[in-house]
Order: sequence, then C-alpha cells, then structure tokens
Amino acid sequence: MCGGCEGCCPTGKFSVGGGPGTAVQQMLMEGLGARSVLVTGANRGIGLELVRQLLEMPNPPQWLFACSRSPEGERGQELRKLASSHPNLVMVKLDATNLASITEAAAFVEDHLKDTGLNVLINNAGILKGMTLDTVSEEDMEDVYKTNVTGPLLVSKAFLPLLRKAAQGSSQKGLSCSKAAIVNISSLLGCIELVPATYSKPVIAYRCSKAALNMLTKCQSLTYKEDGILCTAVHPGWVKTDMGTQEAVMTVDESVRGILQVLPNLVDEHNGTLVDWKGKKLPW
Amino acid sequence: MCGGCEGCCPTGKFSVGGGPGTAVQQMLMEGLGARSVLVTGANRGIGLELVRQLLEMPNPPQWLFACSRSPEGERGQELRKLASSHPNLVMVKLDATNLASITEAAAFVEDHLKDTGLNVLINNAGILKGMTLDTVSEEDMEDVYKTNVTGPLLVSKAFLPLLRKAAQGSSQKGLSCSKAAIVNISSLLGCIELVPATYSKPVIAYRCSKAALNMLTKCQSLTYKEDGILCTAVHPGWVKTDMGTQEAVMTVDESVRGILQVLPNLVDEHNGTLVDWKGKKLPW
Repeated sequence: MCGGCEGCCPTGKFSVGGGPGTAVQQMLMEGLGARSVLVTGANRGIGLELVRQLLEMPNPPQWLFACSRSPEGERGQELRKLASSHPNLVMVKLDATNLASITEAAAFVEDHLKDTGLNVLINNAGILKGMTLDTVSEEDMEDVYKTNVTGPLLVSKAFLPLLRKAAQGSSQKGLSCSKAAIVNISSLLGCIELVPATYSKPVIAYRCSKAALNMLTKCQSLTYKEDGILCTAVHPGWVKTDMGTQEAVMTVDESVRGILQVLPNLVDEHNGTLVDWKGKKLPW
Repeated sequence: MCGGCEGCCPTGKFSVGGGPGTAVQQMLMEGLGARSVLVTGANRGIGLELVRQLLEMPNPPQWLFACSRSPEGERGQELRKLASSHPNLVMVKLDATNLASITEAAAFVEDHLKDTGLNVLINNAGILKGMTLDTVSEEDMEDVYKTNVTGPLLVSKAFLPLLRKAAQGSSQKGLSCSKAAIVNISSLLGCIELVPATYSKPVIAYRCSKAALNMLTKCQSLTYKEDGILCTAVHPGWVKTDMGTQEAVMTVDESVRGILQVLPNLVDEHNGTLVDWKGKKLPW
C-alpha cells in the first residue's frame, strides 16, 4: 500500500467532516442548500434514511423526490407515511434497470420542478449479489452491473437537462451540491487497491460493479464539469441494512448523518473522487 | 496525480522488460517455459499475433490452444493456415459470452492435455463499444461487460481445474507463467486514476468494463494464489488493430513482442497487478 500519496490514500488528510461547533456543523444545520434533491432506491436502507434526515433538516429541500420501483406497494409504506406529513416529499416510480421507467420519471420530475432545475441527484439504488468466485454466476454479474452501473449511467443521462438547468440558474462560482451534483453511492469494496484488506467479503459481482461505478463517476466528472455539475462517489460505510446485514459496524442513522455532513462541503477538488461518509478520500 | 508512490505509478521503476542481451532477452529466447497455453479471441488482432509469435519461439508450447467463436468460418482462415503447418496449434471453438460453449471448450482442451494441466490462460477476447456518455447505450454497457468481464470470469472458472493441475504438477517455488497463470488482457483506459490524461477517448462502456476486469484480476489473484496460480492484468498498449484502429501508435507485432517478454518475468510481486507491455506497473 502506498505510503507517500496525498489525496488518494485513506489518511484522513482530506477529510471534509467536522465535529460539533465547526463550520461543517454549521453547514449541516443549514442543510444542503439544495432547493431540490432526488434519491433513487429511497424506500429502504440508506435511501430511506437520506429522505428522513433531509426532511428533518432545519432548511429542508423545497422538493425532495424519493424514487422507488413500487411506491404504491408494501415496500413504499414508510415513504407514504413520510409523504403524508411532508408536502415537499414527492414519491416517484422509477426502476433504474428500465429505460422507459427512467424517462417517465424524469418527465414527471420536470413537471413538478416547472422551470427550475434539479440540484442533487443521488444514485443510491443498488444490489449486492454473488459472494465468491466459486459461487458467482453469469446472472449475478449481469444483474448487479445493470442495477449498480448501467442504472446510474442512464438515470444521470435522463436527469442531465434538469441538472444543467439548476447549474445555469445558479450564480455560484465553482462546483457544489447547492448548485448541481450527481452523487453516486459506491463502496470501499470497489477499491481495487484495498481488496487485500477487505477480501473477507469477496462479493465479486458487487466489487466489479462498484469499481466500474467509480470509473463512471470519474468519466462523468470530466464530461459534466463544463456544465457546472459536480460528480462524486460516496462510500457510506458498512451499514446495518438489508444489504449490509446486521453484522455491519455502523447504524444507517450514523452513516447518513455523515453523508449529509459531507455533501455540503464537496467542492471542485472532490469532483471525480470517492469519499467516505466522513469525507475522507479513498484510493481507487 | 500521486508523486510519491512506489509500485502503483507509471514511473517505470518496476519495469520487468529489458533490452537485447539481458536476462529478459534470454528468457524470451527460451520462450515462456509453458508447456501449454490457451488464448481466447485468437482469430485476429493481439490474439492472433500472440499465437503467431508463440509458434515462432525457439521453444514453443507443446500445446497452443487458439480459441475463437467460429474456427471454421471466414474469420478462422489465418488460424487454419497456421494450424496446417504447426501440429502443436489446436483450434478451439469458444464463445466467451456463452457458458455452454465455454464448458465444452474446457472439456475439449482437457481431452487434448490428457493428464497434464494448462499452464497459461490468456483472456484476450474483448470488445470496444460506446464512445461517450451521450452516445453510450444500455446495450453497449451490457454487451461490453458480458464479453470483457463476465467472459474472463467464466472462462477462468471453467479452466481452473486444468490450471490447478498444472500448478500441482510443478515443482517450482513461487508463482509464474511456466507454472500456472491467468493473464487478463486489460487496458490503460481502465485506470481510473489516469482518466484525466486519456479522456480524449471516452469509450465509457469499455472503460467501465476494464476497471471491473482489473477488480476481477485482483480478486482472482487473492483467491487463486493458494492454488499456485498467478493472476495478472496486462495493458497491451494502443495497438493498430480492428479495435485500436489505424490511428494507434504501435504495431501489433511490437505490442506482442513486449507482452511475450513480460510474461516469463512475472513473479509473486506481479500477482494481482496491472502491468503494461513493457512490464511497467500501472495505477488503478
């Protein structure tokens, strides 16, 4: 492992987090500064908690779009409960593996936003399958890639006009989540450099997909920076969710509090990087 | 870009290549030291040239398996010509996107090898599609991943018993291509760290697939080292082939000469790394 790197190793030097009373804490209190936020995979786990905590902020988004495959189904129950008491929460039907569904969702969101753009797109929907090289199947590889990589690619393309509109409508210099951003929820398990330290969980299909998602994020960051759109990948930590299992070391509350502290502090230097829930840059 | 790294930056410090008269050149003259080698995508480009140069070596493999989708078709012409004058060249029908075809090919190769194993598997078959974020489609993403990542995964699994047999039958200490190895032909374009320097060719689907292939290589290296199998990814350079186009800077002859100098010099420290055709380690 590299000992001399600045900016790519998990040394914490580039942490953008902070304790109570810091500028970061101040930012947290002020919220994301984003007028509109969209979260995919919002019906459970980290997605649902992002929605909950964004709604609880003193300065919540004016529009919060919570996307899931079946907002009307059993799995949409929690979101429906939240929507009943938060008029700024809009439930959106979106299946990130289905282009027609994505296109329809983008049109629906555009209708809601009227002439304003979308500030933050959080590509959170993801699946985990395929444990070891021995057990992983062709279908695991394809399903996981479709949801975890092709999904974020297509969703980002569909919402790009709205993100561009938000950036064009902003007078801010530089990149930020309060202007326009794509946040891809990735994973430390997608860091090739760190595999030797994390291989007790082989999850091959998932790892390959997250390495590819990191590549996608880097490509998006180079393509979309001209549009004023920040693109950053975020590792949420190993979290007690359906995906992370109860073995995980962190609660979803803790992870999402961290992420929501990090997002308002992302600037140009974080474009095309992978940061964790504490804002620490991770190596590829 | 990192200035202080040893071992991950393309500084050339770890080059395993060498000029005429060096130990490397000596090794080249002696060939790979591998009794049996299998190359996928062997009917054209780098695959075909690997076959040609392996056959020309003073000490060629006793069995050289050249795999392609249609050995009998028009595209198998060059290989058939070579096979007619080289009894050690065996043409194998193998479609890396079709599990049944892969399984059948492994059984066919096993029959040929009788009770010996396979020393070197070169996962060379690959495709390039999907130019920019704007033009890349869902199908591009899926097709390219299927061939460039799921393919090498499934082919490696199918030939694993034969690779293990070769490793078990070897008295050599340490990992090497003369014992047992999986060589995944990857690309510099799959290096996330280097995207800013290479983004004049966006090729999104290809880049995502190669980042994932690099991850697969790292996972294979950790899983299969216990079996005595070396796993290394190789960047062949930007080569004048159907895939690389005639714009490319290097001839296929030059690239393959480089690769065949590098392979015999791969040892434990190259397990789970990405090296270029000169043996230089590349960052992820």
